[in-house]
Amino acid sequence: MRPLLQEIRHTPLLWLLAFVPALFLLQRTKPQAHTLLFGVSVLAIVPLAALLSHATESVAVKTGDAVGGLLNATLGNLTELVIALAALRAGEYTLVKASIAGAIVTNTLFMLGASFLLGGLRHHVQEYNRVNARLQAGLLFLATVALLVPSAVGGADGASKNAFVTSLSLGLAVLLIVAYGLGLWFTLGTHPEIFASVAHGEDEEAPWPLGLAFVTLAGVTLLVALVSEVFVESVQDAAVDLGMSQAFVGFIVVALVGAAAEMTSAFAGARKNRLDLSVGIALGSASQIALFVAPVLVLASYVLGPAPMSLQFWPGAVVMMFIATMTAALVTNSGKSAWFIGVLVLTVYLVFAMTLYLLPQSGT
Amino acid sequence: MRPLLQEIRHTPLLWLLAFVPALFLLQRTKPQAHTLLFGVSVLAIVPLAALLSHATESVAVKTGDAVGGLLNATLGNLTELVIALAALRAGEYTLVKASIAGAIVTNTLFMLGASFLLGGLRHHVQEYNRVNARLQAGLLFLATVALLVPSAVGGADGASKNAFVTSLSLGLAVLLIVAYGLGLWFTLGTHPEIFASVAHGEDEEAPWPLGLAFVTLAGVTLLVALVSEVFVESVQDAAVDLGMSQAFVGFIVVALVGAAAEMTSAFAGARKNRLDLSVGIALGSASQIALFVAPVLVLASYVLGPAPMSLQFWPGAVVMMFIATMTAALVTNSGKSAWFIGVLVLTVYLVFAMTLYLLPQSGT
Amino acid sequence: MRPLLQEIRHTPLLWLLAFVPALFLLQRTKPQAHTLLFGVSVLAIVPLAALLSHATESVAVKTGDAVGGLLNATLGNLTELVIALAALRAGEYTLVKASIAGAIVTNTLFMLGASFLLGGLRHHVQEYNRVNARLQAGLLFLATVALLVPSAVGGADGASKNAFVTSLSLGLAVLLIVAYGLGLWFTLGTHPEIFASVAHGEDEEAPWPLGLAFVTLAGVTLLVALVSEVFVESVQDAAVDLGMSQAFVGFIVVALVGAAAEMTSAFAGARKNRLDLSVGIALGSASQIALFVAPVLVLASYVLGPAPMSLQFWPGAVVMMFIATMTAALVTNSGKSAWFIGVLVLTVYLVFAMTLYLLPQSGT
Repeated sequence: MRPLLQEIRHTPLLWLLAFVPALFLLQRTKPQAHTLLFGVSVLAIVPLAALLSHATESVAVKTGDAVGGLLNATLGNLTELVIALAALRAGEYTLVKASIAGAIVTNTLFMLGASFLLGGLRHHVQEYNRVNARLQAGLLFLATVALLVPSAVGGADGASKNAFVTSLSLGLAVLLIVAYGLGLWFTLGTHPEIFASVAHGEDEEAPWPLGLAFVTLAGVTLLVALVSEVFVESVQDAAVDLGMSQAFVGFIVVALVGAAAEMTSAFAGARKNRLDLSVGIALGSASQIALFVAPVLVLASYVLGPAPMSLQFWPGAVVMMFIATMTAALVTNSGKSAWFIGVLVLTVYLVFAMTLYLLPQSGT
Repeated sequence: MRPLLQEIRHTPLLWLLAFVPALFLLQRTKPQAHTLLFGVSVLAIVPLAALLSHATESVAVKTGDAVGGLLNATLGNLTELVIALAALRAGEYTLVKASIAGAIVTNTLFMLGASFLLGGLRHHVQEYNRVNARLQAGLLFLATVALLVPSAVGGADGASKNAFVTSLSLGLAVLLIVAYGLGLWFTLGTHPEIFASVAHGEDEEAPWPLGLAFVTLAGVTLLVALVSEVFVESVQDAAVDLGMSQAFVGFIVVALVGAAAEMTSAFAGARKNRLDLSVGIALGSASQIALFVAPVLVLASYVLGPAPMSLQFWPGAVVMMFIATMTAALVTNSGKSAWFIGVLVLTVYLVFAMTLYLLPQSGT
Repeated sequence: MRPLLQEIRHTPLLWLLAFVPALFLLQRTKPQAHTLLFGVSVLAIVPLAALLSHATESVAVKTGDAVGGLLNATLGNLTELVIALAALRAGEYTLVKASIAGAIVTNTLFMLGASFLLGGLRHHVQEYNRVNARLQAGLLFLATVALLVPSAVGGADGASKNAFVTSLSLGLAVLLIVAYGLGLWFTLGTHPEIFASVAHGEDEEAPWPLGLAFVTLAGVTLLVALVSEVFVESVQDAAVDLGMSQAFVGFIVVALVGAAAEMTSAFAGARKNRLDLSVGIALGSASQIALFVAPVLVLASYVLGPAPMSLQFWPGAVVMMFIATMTAALVTNSGKSAWFIGVLVLTVYLVFAMTLYLLPQSGT
């Protein structure tokens, strides 16, 4: 525990951890103060994300960037899965789908773009292993096709259409999970050597011992899940107070805060010239949500939910996921990055954010 | 003839050739036994496809993989052209268009994906000449644009719309044939050296003499055409018996059996580490159907059909062709392959197949 | 002035300059002879374009191809901006948008394709710096997304929809201009070295002195603007006489003539094996129109126009811009070119041109 306490004492950012108990206290005493709860929960998530990031990096030093990126993406998405399962049990399928689509778009565009930009501000040109980026982009492309085709090919309406979409969603969910599993086997099992990192960057900080890192990972992940739940409960009401549209909250605000932990690691990696880690987290997290979290939620809806959930999304969400995938594929094609690539990707994200922010309420 | 008879004696698969005369006998005596005719015709096509494959390879040894791939694709598509012309004469334009779209999607996704998978199961990483793959993907992209734009740009409805689509289809058909011809001239005439094979793989089998190979090619192509006709006649009724939707039969079953001959060669090439041959057959066959067979059928409809056939497809078919083209472009970009690339491409195909299988009948 | 007069005396093409004063005379005496004015203005633009091209090349010799291409694109688009501002003042927003979309598609497909073809007819394989091509394709992709998303994501109709599109267009316009400015800073400021030309080609002609080049640039640009105005005024009526659809005139004819100056330079560059210059002009001009000219017109409409102009385009135009961008991205990926690549890109353009030519009038 000593390195952990020492780290907290020396990093002013981590003093924000005080907001974690404050939040739980506030939740008990003032459950209706939505905008306050919203603000405090954001302040509490930030230091937790930073801790999670440091713990993951300590593990990544020992496992290599590919496994480290996967681990980071998985832990980050675990909290999103926990939250989505709670929404699923309540039958709020629109919120579940919005958070899935938002997470895919945010990870692919904002996290990747900001990593390129932050890395590029410090390093003139950065290189990374494009094989991994291509694989993740390929998986994302597959998932987008799976979400696009049912609505594009299906023509009939009414009851038969509904049954068609439900059974198709079940089949596609199984297909995507199998593809994701085979992808992991390919990355870690049969062809690990082609996913090795290109450059290794700086690593001046002494990593934590593995045991401490794992305990921190587990504990902080749990805390993030608890805090996130308060955040999700309060965000809708806070949004009304702050004048934000529902679509903007679901796609942008929830997704940005939900990915805070992964982002801290991805941005730190980019600044240390370990862009492989950043790309692995950003695209790996997006493809994991698309090919694993979303299908698992479909399957879980048969057990937990009031009715089966389909994989059919709002057309605007499908368009945004498709464009995000194409952007990732175009941009990671060369395996090189400079600051303007980050600007380009972030601007695509800003186009989406601006559109959703200005969208009239009825358009969701 | 001796090497041919010797080959038949030593290859148990070729003993299935006995089903060829059996099929013609059955057709005469029991023309209403659709499901039986369907089954026997599939069993008869398989050994013919194997023979065709061996004959083509014997020629390819002497001509190089680029010409060999073209030859193989052309012979394979010749049978499809013969069948489509018969359907054209009967005025069954929906069947003709479904078989065109299905053949493009099946060749691009199933044949390419299965080649990558089968090759990858035997070889760790395979390389191929991506210049040829890019050219074919470019041709496919052009054809998809030609099929996409009329329906996307056309706005007016009614009689003027109809005349617009008919005259536009005629113009596009001529444009595509010219582009295909120039593409052949580029590949075989002005720039043959950049299409040379990357690796040559194993070639342990002694090739047949050229004369025997050509005679076999001609004879077997004719038999395949005859057997395919029985297959197409029986497949619709057999599908009803077996509970498959019409869209699934047209796009998937007919296309898979129709491409059996090319597939045998493509898969054999992949396993022998001659991936250039496989990619050449798969994408070359798809682009030939899109840029040559389909336009020729439009032109032929003016002479043979009851009315001019247009190039306007069902929107779902256009979406699938577009995604298939994009998949091919993304995947062949690197000129390298491993087993998981095959899984990825096959999964996109499975998404389509599953969608079509579950599609309510009225949605076609 | 002497090199200029000498050049005119020795280049028969430049004798067409006599049509410039003839046009202005004709405009005064026979303002209703639309088809005649149309013909003479085309004949007058050609030699002016040739002069502009030579002057720009003289400057490019001293500045390098990247700056030269930017300069050329900017001067070429200056005339388009002047014309569009005139149409804006008259409230003809449909014409303004058609000329923007047409210019993007024509520069991306026709200018790039014809450069590849003309260069390829003289040189077996040509290489160019694909980093610049990729950057321009990325900027174009961003602009297409900005034009695509509002119409794809917006769902509500009526008054709230209208206000949404107007305020979104304003925000997107600012975003695009900022992105364009950062792109210039990246190209010329922080990372100029990665945009250096690959090969330098032949340069047998003696360049003009810089002073003469700049004076010629300024004077000829002014003349092109004046002649273009006559051309735009007469083209609509001439089109009716010649039986061309309105969409065809706006997208194809106006765009081709409007880009005549840039084309002369791009084609000359390609033939001299300076493909970097050609690609820089073609894609640089397209991305400048999409990210700078179009947004500036939106902003200017608040000051000059009767009502704010939006960035919402006719869906067919968005599809064509999207396909043009994808074609450019696919084709410039390798950094190599041969004649057939030009044929491929030109054929995509011909598909569009044919579709627009045959489009029934009501479909615009």
